[in-house]
Amino acid sequence: MKQTYIAEIGKHIGAEVTLRGWLYNKRSSGKLGFLEIRDGSAMMQAIVSKKDVDEATWEASERATQESSVIVTGVPREHPKKPGVYELDVKTLELVGLASEYPITPKEHGVEFLMDHRHLWLRSKRQHAILRVRHTIIKAVRDFFDNNGFTLCDTPIFTPAACEGTTNLFEVNYFDEEKAYLSQSGQLYNEATAAAFGKVYCFGPTFRAEKSKTRRHLTEFWMVEPEVAYAKLDDVMELAEQFVSYVVARVLESRQEELKVLERDITKLEAIIPPFPRLPYDDAAKMLDEAFAAGKLENKFEYGSDLGSPDETYISSQFDKPVMVHRYPAAIKAFYMEPDPLRPDLALCVDVLAPEGYGEVIGGGERASSLEYLLKQIAAHGLPEEAFDWYLDLRKYGTFPHGGFGMGIERCVSWLCGLEHVRETIPFPRMLYRLKP
Amino acid sequence: MKQTYIAEIGKHIGAEVTLRGWLYNKRSSGKLGFLEIRDGSAMMQAIVSKKDVDEATWEASERATQESSVIVTGVPREHPKKPGVYELDVKTLELVGLASEYPITPKEHGVEFLMDHRHLWLRSKRQHAILRVRHTIIKAVRDFFDNNGFTLCDTPIFTPAACEGTTNLFEVNYFDEEKAYLSQSGQLYNEATAAAFGKVYCFGPTFRAEKSKTRRHLTEFWMVEPEVAYAKLDDVMELAEQFVSYVVARVLESRQEELKVLERDITKLEAIIPPFPRLPYDDAAKMLDEAFAAGKLENKFEYGSDLGSPDETYISSQFDKPVMVHRYPAAIKAFYMEPDPLRPDLALCVDVLAPEGYGEVIGGGERASSLEYLLKQIAAHGLPEEAFDWYLDLRKYGTFPHGGFGMGIERCVSWLCGLEHVRETIPFPRMLYRLKP
Repeated sequence: MKQTYIAEIGKHIGAEVTLRGWLYNKRSSGKLGFLEIRDGSAMMQAIVSKKDVDEATWEASERATQESSVIVTGVPREHPKKPGVYELDVKTLELVGLASEYPITPKEHGVEFLMDHRHLWLRSKRQHAILRVRHTIIKAVRDFFDNNGFTLCDTPIFTPAACEGTTNLFEVNYFDEEKAYLSQSGQLYNEATAAAFGKVYCFGPTFRAEKSKTRRHLTEFWMVEPEVAYAKLDDVMELAEQFVSYVVARVLESRQEELKVLERDITKLEAIIPPFPRLPYDDAAKMLDEAFAAGKLENKFEYGSDLGSPDETYISSQFDKPVMVHRYPAAIKAFYMEPDPLRPDLALCVDVLAPEGYGEVIGGGERASSLEYLLKQIAAHGLPEEAFDWYLDLRKYGTFPHGGFGMGIERCVSWLCGLEHVRETIPFPRMLYRLKP
Repeated sequence: MKQTYIAEIGKHIGAEVTLRGWLYNKRSSGKLGFLEIRDGSAMMQAIVSKKDVDEATWEASERATQESSVIVTGVPREHPKKPGVYELDVKTLELVGLASEYPITPKEHGVEFLMDHRHLWLRSKRQHAILRVRHTIIKAVRDFFDNNGFTLCDTPIFTPAACEGTTNLFEVNYFDEEKAYLSQSGQLYNEATAAAFGKVYCFGPTFRAEKSKTRRHLTEFWMVEPEVAYAKLDDVMELAEQFVSYVVARVLESRQEELKVLERDITKLEAIIPPFPRLPYDDAAKMLDEAFAAGKLENKFEYGSDLGSPDETYISSQFDKPVMVHRYPAAIKAFYMEPDPLRPDLALCVDVLAPEGYGEVIGGGERASSLEYLLKQIAAHGLPEEAFDWYLDLRKYGTFPHGGFGMGIERCVSWLCGLEHVRETIPFPRMLYRLKP
């Protein structure tokens, strides 16, 4: 296939090339047609001059509608006044597929309309920018772990028992009346692979059947979860800040243009360098108390409860970097958290809150390594011990301190792109009332 | 956390280091203990000499059982007779977690027993080797596409309608009595993102509810699927051979040691370089006829049917490279395949059969770009047209020739590692009667 991509057009100045793509936009002035061509890699203007082309090409350029597919042959040259911008002097234009009247026009469309047309909406400049940033984030995530001695160990999506209650789990009809549940985290499995490989990560889709319709929730989202044998809470926090900073730096390095399209204030991102502030839960509670007293928060924070969305927003607004809130009350955290030996009512856990009100992007901590403690916790949480037999084996055969965290990719994309809603952070978002397209 | 990893021990010769890991194996001769320590990165021998250590260390080294977790401090040195092999002269040894009698011993265990103990089995040398090769394959897959102008566009796992019949689909209880189905391919969605980005790929878990129990089937497996706008069948085949060769080369380059553990004949892999032979389906049928006549195949191949497992094995045995069988009868292929303009009864599709009897690793082809043809096909296959409204939109708004393929990761791991069964190719395999651990 002889095809030149627009992203590399600068290498072909003066030579005849063939572009294959779509007509993004068009204007004409009498005997000149100005066609904005996109081929997925980038866009460029192609100029059709009636006097220089045959009749078929001129007619095709006149007929071509928005999003019609076209094959254009011509010679690229640099724009006379804009260095680095290229234009194509068209020799021939073939109309591959004439598009019907395109439903997405420059006028404003409602969100539901755009979501119904997600398969077409993806062709817009803004969605391009977001999904390119997403790609870079995912690549950076994998590179970070691959370059730091981690082994990728994919954890299963199908899980047998509803370990932590079925409320937020999707149920699948497996074979012969058996039920399976879609994983909402690979962590328990990561603990097994960490015992085998020392440093591991899993990275795949996860599922939460939360019946909440907020700007931060998807029912299907991607999560990366590293786990490190012998890591303590301090190690987990250090890993998290190194990791987040690396990902942000990679996006800044290679996605300047996309961030510009999104009108992202990149000075906010340039500030994301280690170390990140560490804030004990107790101090966070005090901070929220003071904010309430000063009339800066509507609701009084109740010590011992989890941080609400407005609480997170307030706390993160006090810092220009992600803030690591650690040592939450054990009672509100998962059963497998290691208790703080100095304050057993606290869990050795950490949540990383992104700046600018983007909320929790990372949650993690140390995992309990004592068999006796875990057995007590499983009983106290009313969980079925037999569902955890293999998990408990990890404490019987060479138990070890370890910790890790999970980062939701879509929240990270949302934050780095400066989006209001996660629905644009994934090609085909799945939400409470959204399974299509 | 002060920790040295065994994989990098060569950098620390003569300096005191701390290893954190597990006891893989042990033998002792009176006042010397020879401990094989593994920390997930690699293994090395640690030597405890009763006269050189304190009583606590000696006693701990005596008590430590297989898979007990240990923290060992000592000084590494090169083995006097084996260059590149290191040993640790132990100063202190701390027993972190004494392991109960470890269920997996050097004696032979049955497959079901090992599968039930998969969470522990992963610690063995063989499983390490396989999963490291898997990691390298996945990294190579992503690098190949990332370095060749493809945009990663994750496709959804939850799909709304059972597009191609529900027989092989897992059904999920979504919200409010709604049903969703777990994706068995991202291809239809890839066609939408290819119209937006030109060259795309998706890479995630896919699900098939096949009630078959063979050595090649998992219910949950990972698949990578590239899709290229304006690609024709020849382009798809060229992409496939470049891609497969790249992945094989990367494994050969960085996983020599693992392939040795697996006793893989690497000369077979070194032969995997482009071009791969192209074999029209009609010629494949003739080849099978002749083989049957010569008594080399048990069953006669019926022209017009799909290749069976023994057929694939026979065909692939005739070549020392993957063979690309193309242009199958359209009747046995999916509704969206582009027909061959010269022989409309044939589809412009290709299956890549791995050598040595590993069967189909890649399936793909050109997709139909004509709206009229697709409408006819959907009707002919008895499919609900409304389920495909968004897919048909891609033909209404700038339709374009395009093609791509899918490669199942586990079959690729199986082939490159030389395994008999796919169950060892993924950390936690899911099969017909296997949801645990």
